[in-house]
Amino acid sequence: MIVFDGHLQESRVVAFDVSDRGLLLADGLFETFLVVDGIAFRRTAHLDRMMDGAAALGLTIERARLDHDLDLLLATLGAGTSVVRLTLTRGPGARGLARPADPRPSVLVTATPWSSDLVFRRLRLATTTIRRNETSPTARFKTLAYVDAIAALAEAETRGADDALFLNGAGRVASTTMANLFAVVAGRLVTPPVTDGVLAGTTRGLVLEVAAARGITTEVRSLEVDELFSAEEVFATNAVRLISPVVALDGKPIGTASGRAEMILDEIGARIAAECGREPRAV
Amino acid sequence: MIVFDGHLQESRVVAFDVSDRGLLLADGLFETFLVVDGIAFRRTAHLDRMMDGAAALGLTIERARLDHDLDLLLATLGAGTSVVRLTLTRGPGARGLARPADPRPSVLVTATPWSSDLVFRRLRLATTTIRRNETSPTARFKTLAYVDAIAALAEAETRGADDALFLNGAGRVASTTMANLFAVVAGRLVTPPVTDGVLAGTTRGLVLEVAAARGITTEVRSLEVDELFSAEEVFATNAVRLISPVVALDGKPIGTASGRAEMILDEIGARIAAECGREPRAV
Repeated sequence: MIVFDGHLQESRVVAFDVSDRGLLLADGLFETFLVVDGIAFRRTAHLDRMMDGAAALGLTIERARLDHDLDLLLATLGAGTSVVRLTLTRGPGARGLARPADPRPSVLVTATPWSSDLVFRRLRLATTTIRRNETSPTARFKTLAYVDAIAALAEAETRGADDALFLNGAGRVASTTMANLFAVVAGRLVTPPVTDGVLAGTTRGLVLEVAAARGITTEVRSLEVDELFSAEEVFATNAVRLISPVVALDGKPIGTASGRAEMILDEIGARIAAECGREPRAV
Repeated sequence: MIVFDGHLQESRVVAFDVSDRGLLLADGLFETFLVVDGIAFRRTAHLDRMMDGAAALGLTIERARLDHDLDLLLATLGAGTSVVRLTLTRGPGARGLARPADPRPSVLVTATPWSSDLVFRRLRLATTTIRRNETSPTARFKTLAYVDAIAALAEAETRGADDALFLNGAGRVASTTMANLFAVVAGRLVTPPVTDGVLAGTTRGLVLEVAAARGITTEVRSLEVDELFSAEEVFATNAVRLISPVVALDGKPIGTASGRAEMILDEIGARIAAECGREPRAV
């Protein structure tokens, strides 16, 4: 089942206006939720981020509409764990870049099954030549413009890696194509600031919160590539895969011994259980 | 009339698979043609560029299919001048960034009326804080990822300008949100190289060709912002608007006296007449 323009329907093929700026110009945003037994984990954080992105893009949308369409789909899911994607576009427009004076945004909600195999996957990263552009709204907000990520992931796979490491324009660590990064440096949990060209990840936010609750000192600051090699541990965070230990970068091993990644994953599991009724991996 | 998936249809509302990666991830390319009496100007150059972009993105498409779908739409246009957009996406895919093993690309062709008012519009530019990312495929190829351009244009309009000037990561002149830039410096026509983060514009290519034919020395090299202020003339080039003189940047006037822009526009008009049967402004 999917929801398109407020209506639940069986088929993924919908009556779609091809002048939609989401399709023509990537003029829109999306969120990906981990859903356990019909409850979207960190729903508020995801919707807050979409509303922030919409404000930044000058895209007017009622939050109630997002809530309504999301609920419509969630109600169909029943027991089980799913990945739900909420896509918002500026809707149809005349030719050109100028934003329509009277926009009719499109909202799409889709679901796919989630698998516990996605969690705690050990990642080998390869540094891509494509830099993350910290001056662009596409770096800070989850817009539809994923061309760089697609190209960087394909390049990484060609090089025998599982994901790419993006540096930013200043040559500092940014993120992978689909996840934020954390490094355990001198016992502290360090992650780059959004001004370095990274998404304000919902799981990134959760990890910062969880770490503080567990007495781990956190630091949001720029990360140099060299620090990844000397770090006690490096891991990636994402709403669907949760925590992924980074075991290598460009063929060189990276430490995995601090135990922080596992500790944080356990705590995230507990948070999911508290919010959604059970851990996603427990059936 | 539009063409979608090889079929001509009246309505812009089509049966569309919402798992299309063009909509979800901007995973595709487009071209915009100036069409005079059913003939697409510089058709080969546009299709060459789309095929180059497709190869760079690892998107397999038969050129014959693009030709077929374009022809199908062109045949409906009759006399008059139009703007035709050809959009290619990687088609439907499973969730995630990984490119589908067995892609079924989507092709869309749409037309809108062209107006001679679009030609030789005097542009006031405002420098945007968003940099053009010369390391990204989105800078070199005409992908669907236009979020930066939309945001920069909106910002420019807020500042009372007509379009934005993008600098690249190194702070050099790149392009506007929709056009390449040329500056007449010491009698030479200078435009930045594609490695500086600009599109290999079809009109850019034509201007370089036309200038050489008219005995104007051309130079493809990096341009500093200061050079725009000291230039004898600066103009923007685009397949729909052809030549647009740049009269100001960030509120400061820019020279318009070299006569090169008008000379080149005349020559482009002659080329259009030779290829399409008449100048677009002559009815």
